[in-house]
Amino acid sequence: MKEQFVNYIRNLQNTITLKLEAIDSGASFTEDVWERTEGGGGHTRVIENGNVFEKGGVNRSEVFGELPKSMQQYFGVKDVNFYACGLSLVLHPVNPMIPTVHANWRYFEMYDAQGNIVDQWFGGGQDLTPYYLFEEDAEHFHRICKTACDAHDPGFYPKYKSQCDEYFYNTHRQEGRGIGGLFFDYLKATRQMTMQDWYNFVTQVGDSFLAAYTPIVEKRKDTPYSEANRTWQEIRRGRYVEFNLVHDKGTLFGLKTDGRIESILMSLPPKVQWKYNHQPDAGSEEEKLIEVLKNPKNWI
Amino acid sequence: MKEQFVNYIRNLQNTITLKLEAIDSGASFTEDVWERTEGGGGHTRVIENGNVFEKGGVNRSEVFGELPKSMQQYFGVKDVNFYACGLSLVLHPVNPMIPTVHANWRYFEMYDAQGNIVDQWFGGGQDLTPYYLFEEDAEHFHRICKTACDAHDPGFYPKYKSQCDEYFYNTHRQEGRGIGGLFFDYLKATRQMTMQDWYNFVTQVGDSFLAAYTPIVEKRKDTPYSEANRTWQEIRRGRYVEFNLVHDKGTLFGLKTDGRIESILMSLPPKVQWKYNHQPDAGSEEEKLIEVLKNPKNWI
Repeated sequence: MKEQFVNYIRNLQNTITLKLEAIDSGASFTEDVWERTEGGGGHTRVIENGNVFEKGGVNRSEVFGELPKSMQQYFGVKDVNFYACGLSLVLHPVNPMIPTVHANWRYFEMYDAQGNIVDQWFGGGQDLTPYYLFEEDAEHFHRICKTACDAHDPGFYPKYKSQCDEYFYNTHRQEGRGIGGLFFDYLKATRQMTMQDWYNFVTQVGDSFLAAYTPIVEKRKDTPYSEANRTWQEIRRGRYVEFNLVHDKGTLFGLKTDGRIESILMSLPPKVQWKYNHQPDAGSEEEKLIEVLKNPKNWI
Repeated sequence: MKEQFVNYIRNLQNTITLKLEAIDSGASFTEDVWERTEGGGGHTRVIENGNVFEKGGVNRSEVFGELPKSMQQYFGVKDVNFYACGLSLVLHPVNPMIPTVHANWRYFEMYDAQGNIVDQWFGGGQDLTPYYLFEEDAEHFHRICKTACDAHDPGFYPKYKSQCDEYFYNTHRQEGRGIGGLFFDYLKATRQMTMQDWYNFVTQVGDSFLAAYTPIVEKRKDTPYSEANRTWQEIRRGRYVEFNLVHDKGTLFGLKTDGRIESILMSLPPKVQWKYNHQPDAGSEEEKLIEVLKNPKNWI
């Protein structure tokens, strides 16, 4: 399974970065290959100062060895070996009319002393963080997510959609980070779903990413915007930072287990503002966005 | 003691904000008075878009009632009442040659069911975060800190100086947030020091704040700077955000115990940048700063 999945994400990283470079038609991705002392490493691909993408990363990693102490506590296990691989991406566009997007697809194995797999699961998802709300964009993104889910189980979309709303929630602001999408974790073999079935599901979600996001980018990338729109985008990016540094389990894990800092924090936006007690005007487009972030909607 | 100290910080807030307004001679502080449902409230004073100060807050609060659950766990107590008051400030100057400064002076009481004080202590300190290192400024700041300490005990300065270096440390970056100053907590009555002695010490540190910081501001506020200096300042402000959101106990406490979010997060800088894997040039002024952040110095 691990060879099959690592092969899949290697290809998906290529497919996604090629397509994004074609859309940007200015900047291209640069790759940093890094190694992890305890086992494994990664290929971090970053784009900066593009025509369309101000900053973004599409990062693949494959790490293994002894499970770090803090993760042993988290999983309630002791002195086991593990293997994990995944593809993670975050894209921060220049134009405030294009949403930021995040996606991740990952696979995890744990072993006993003899090297037998004792546990294995998939996780991941994809979600959208708009600065201005275009309902048709939100509906398009969610429809693609739903189609990928429905091919496997009609219960998946509603389940993983609400898990996404719950996970990407800034409790201290009482609002969602964005308008959601899918979030799933600990996808393990059951009577209904073998690991191969989960592989088929997760890779179908991965294959749906470009179709979910790029039509929105194409549609909005030449929309004119004002300095005020840009300021609003930078203030909202502040909320993105707050979520990632205060609440995101993946980020905190990485920071506390000596992950490669620059690969983890590539998710942070390029330019950000914090103004004291900023409130959108009543009846404005900015307020319309906040309304939806405070009360997650069913888009379909 | 609580009346004495709350009176002190009310006056100190006035003294500090008046002096800072005089230095800025552009913007002035606006005050938000807020109440806490469970007991108490605060006076948040914020300055924005000044000639000298791009953003800053000098906030006084006084809160009491039942100790929130998460703080009960932290202190290892159950169902007690508490009282806490403090003055907290963070100033982010426009000019990258002026350091950011943070200071805090606070007092805490816990009560038994009969309302008797069962525990009480002072905490606080003041520390400097430069973007460019002027050794004479660092020495000046630390000398004022040392003088305030030495009036009470020659052991205080070395002790609270190293506690400051330890506390304001971005473990995930392996560097200090700044060049330190003083940090102390749980200052409780001992054979050597009564609570009144600690009051005298903490208020002497509070009284030293303007003398420690404002001469540096006056000296650097008209120093010319380039766009590149400003970019470096915004990147370093990113590290400030990382410390406050990932490591700072006060901030996380506030966010997780329903504190007044805007008063807590006023500490975040106004404009911030994150660039992927940014490294200062060899031999540059920027590298000289990093060197000192990685290896805290004795300034006196």
